Amino acid sequence: MLDNKNTYDLIIVGCGPAGLSAAINAQIRNKKFLLIGGEYCLEKIYKAPRVDNYLGFFAIQGSELKNKFLEHVQKMGIEIQNKRVDAIYPLGKIIQVMVQGEVYSTTALIIGTGLSTPKYIKGEKDLLGKGVGYCATCDGPLYKGKRVIVLGETEEAQEEANYLADICDSVIYLSLHGHPENLKENIKIGEGKPLAVQGEQVFKALETDKAVYEADGLFIIRKETPVQDILPGLNVEKGYIEVDRTMQTNIPGVFAAGDCTGPPYQIAKAVGEGLTAALNAVKYIDSKGEGSK
Amino acid sequence: MLDNKNTYDLIIVGCGPAGLSAAINAQIRNKKFLLIGGEYCLEKIYKAPRVDNYLGFFAIQGSELKNKFLEHVQKMGIEIQNKRVDAIYPLGKIIQVMVQGEVYSTTALIIGTGLSTPKYIKGEKDLLGKGVGYCATCDGPLYKGKRVIVLGETEEAQEEANYLADICDSVIYLSLHGHPENLKENIKIGEGKPLAVQGEQVFKALETDKAVYEADGLFIIRKETPVQDILPGLNVEKGYIEVDRTMQTNIPGVFAAGDCTGPPYQIAKAVGEGLTAALNAVKYIDSKGEGSK
Repeated sequence: MLDNKNTYDLIIVGCGPAGLSAAINAQIRNKKFLLIGGEYCLEKIYKAPRVDNYLGFFAIQGSELKNKFLEHVQKMGIEIQNKRVDAIYPLGKIIQVMVQGEVYSTTALIIGTGLSTPKYIKGEKDLLGKGVGYCATCDGPLYKGKRVIVLGETEEAQEEANYLADICDSVIYLSLHGHPENLKENIKIGEGKPLAVQGEQVFKALETDKAVYEADGLFIIRKETPVQDILPGLNVEKGYIEVDRTMQTNIPGVFAAGDCTGPPYQIAKAVGEGLTAALNAVKYIDSKGEGSK
Repeated sequence: MLDNKNTYDLIIVGCGPAGLSAAINAQIRNKKFLLIGGEYCLEKIYKAPRVDNYLGFFAIQGSELKNKFLEHVQKMGIEIQNKRVDAIYPLGKIIQVMVQGEVYSTTALIIGTGLSTPKYIKGEKDLLGKGVGYCATCDGPLYKGKRVIVLGETEEAQEEANYLADICDSVIYLSLHGHPENLKENIKIGEGKPLAVQGEQVFKALETDKAVYEADGLFIIRKETPVQDILPGLNVEKGYIEVDRTMQTNIPGVFAAGDCTGPPYQIAKAVGEGLTAALNAVKYIDSKGEGSK
């Protein structure tokens, strides 16, 4: 059940220049929105020694420009929610967004997640949704009493494994982030580097350079999961989210902006697209009879 | 004949946020470019009491933001040429641009001329190129020894009329800017407000609420001529220049950015598109084997 607290006009995923630009425009248009960002908003800008090509600031240090951007949203009373989006389900008139175990409901969504180009494991994409998944919280219940493997790129992946350990028959944890310290006792540690995901129609086993681990399900918890992997049906071409000139994707109500829509990977382009996405999302929201806080 | 002095990699037409953003990026990419602007660069921004939605500047006065923008280009050593573009001729590998009687040659062109929505006179569009034109300097020689009418919206239109008075048999000047003070003696003053452009296959006469003036040619000199009127073959849909995601128009080497490509009419969108247009123009220039100063 959804309560009003978790219902929004707009959810913006990503706190780079595209997400922040979208947020300030959503605020001005008086929409009820949520701005969800990862731990490192504006990390790329922060690291830039000098930025010359964002009109209005010549020869500015990246760290200073980052502060200007954050100051802008803070002065407007916008908060960045430091959370992880696990899955997005477009359900026609509304879109459901799974955020660390909580379900949010929104009329429109803007994806501003930047570039993320993970190295997929051989066979992984073929078995996605057929035993391979990225969100234990979402799909875990399907594996009640079964055997699962968790391949963890981050320390937080251990939480996912611990959750699965409560409902599954067995859990193997394969760590890509050093020695895992916070796992429940009934979780077995796997070894080696992942080489291939095995299975024909359904997932059968994970092969590493040390062993082959058989199971019914495999959860891959990456530092950054490309949004197309958690939003089924999103059109992606050569790794970029397809958008039209209004920044609308192929899914009604879902917009995208910034590096995730393709080059040039530049602040000005992201800021411009964030604005365009927000104003068109507002139009979309209003057309659905929603709108205003 | 073209000399090297008037040959460029890129010509940017327009000095609003799109044109300036394009210019700073062309400068960084070390292209030989010309930035041509009208008298009132950034006029709309200058008049804005307050701008809140250009990321990095919260609650800034329009006049202050204008100064920041101009400061940015000045610090980079970019000059704005205060000139009027009369005609653009795409000739395949190069594009010729007529600028107040001078001919410039460029590999690529960016249009950032903002919105201009003149009130066309009834019949005007049907007879465009068939006796009706917008550039006396360009088409004047076709009317040697003939009768022409100049419909002037600005004081500068008198210069066009004076030029025509030297080569044409007769010139009638109809002023939309008050009483014309600088006309040659052999120019006749027309009267009334223009109602319709008459003619079947070719121009016959200009009808006003006071009289009907017959002639062989009609030049309409507006304050702002929409770029599609001086660039034959440019695809325009509902008054907006059609562009793809790289800001390329249907004409090779011709890009567009900012308000002229359609809504939203916002600074951030124009700045982003200016950058995208510039970087893709640079790619185009390099692909043609030109490039670098």
